[in-house]
Amino acid sequence: MNPKKIAVILSGCGNRDGAEIHESTLTLLAIHKQGADYQCFAPDIPQHHVLNHLTGEEMNEQRNVLVEAARIARGNIKDLRRFDPADYDALILPGGAGAAKNLSSYAFDGPDCTVNQDVERAVRSMHAAGKPIGALCIAPVILAKVLGRGELTAGQDGATAANLEAMGAKHTPTDHGEIVVDRRDNIVSTPCYMLEARVDQVAEGAENLVRAVLELAG
Amino acid sequence: MNPKKIAVILSGCGNRDGAEIHESTLTLLAIHKQGADYQCFAPDIPQHHVLNHLTGEEMNEQRNVLVEAARIARGNIKDLRRFDPADYDALILPGGAGAAKNLSSYAFDGPDCTVNQDVERAVRSMHAAGKPIGALCIAPVILAKVLGRGELTAGQDGATAANLEAMGAKHTPTDHGEIVVDRRDNIVSTPCYMLEARVDQVAEGAENLVRAVLELAG
Repeated sequence: MNPKKIAVILSGCGNRDGAEIHESTLTLLAIHKQGADYQCFAPDIPQHHVLNHLTGEEMNEQRNVLVEAARIARGNIKDLRRFDPADYDALILPGGAGAAKNLSSYAFDGPDCTVNQDVERAVRSMHAAGKPIGALCIAPVILAKVLGRGELTAGQDGATAANLEAMGAKHTPTDHGEIVVDRRDNIVSTPCYMLEARVDQVAEGAENLVRAVLELAG
Repeated sequence: MNPKKIAVILSGCGNRDGAEIHESTLTLLAIHKQGADYQCFAPDIPQHHVLNHLTGEEMNEQRNVLVEAARIARGNIKDLRRFDPADYDALILPGGAGAAKNLSSYAFDGPDCTVNQDVERAVRSMHAAGKPIGALCIAPVILAKVLGRGELTAGQDGATAANLEAMGAKHTPTDHGEIVVDRRDNIVSTPCYMLEARVDQVAEGAENLVRAVLELAG
């Protein structure tokens, strides 16, 4: 039997303006540990902005989401425009502010956000095909916006929970390492750094999420 | 008993011009998994260069090693100039080209390389205090250059092995996940991406290295 293949959508490289590096790496680790393979994708678009991760201040720079995400993927990454749902058994979106600033406008517009059209197409096409989708940290907001439904978690964060519900999803609170599995819509979510987490707690969440996603992928 | 505290020296953010992201993250994971704590450090210096990780081409940009490394550390990182060996039980250097381009000039000068003075001070002071030092991937070249001795591994790479020996170290070949423990000098090394590795193999190497480092730290 061929190993299951999971598409992973990255949103840059760094928790403040891109993909959260630990969540992304630990998702890739969990996929390999459980005998599956991955292909990373990212949209070929400018980052919303570039933040100095030491000071939090905005830098007078422009960076590209795909080019920066390639750092996490060690160069093995494709433009999300080339994503074909027929080639993959599942889709996973790690978190980080990039999910809310580059993949969508959630950080600025809350429940009224827009979602990048290639991200929306990837989510819709996998959902329509009945293939599982996993979302870590803040990335569940993208699923709620695109699908307008689903049982999702944002950890213990009340504001995000309210926004998820405003977009038509149901929020279930979780603690470190826990996941929420929505078997009707084949979606799985876990809070990771939505909580004040240690790296091993994030790894546990990613591992549980990937296990549930692979199980739903049959 | 207080948890052991390990200083981790990062060299940027990305395998081609900075710290290898998986090796760095999986080192932090292994430290937390084994009940210890970490503090990340990096030198506050310009990167040697910035490479586009999608194409491999040099970009017309300047980035700072400490500021970029802060992406991996989620902002919790200190200038290496402030490193005090008395505060830590052990020191670990993940790999990535940044170890050979930013922390040292090994990528350009081979065995005749120079080592950043704060990196040299950190290595010398920990070694003099009898505290263990771990090095992943290409980072063992820094230990060989600073100490002029030690039993180290660069996986199966003949050219790096020859250079390690030219700097006064002894090279022992290793396969995925394996470590070399030098009990005379309290140094531990593992090949990670010096081999064509999967993420779970890198995690295994980092985990074995951290276990040995903590054991040497007593």
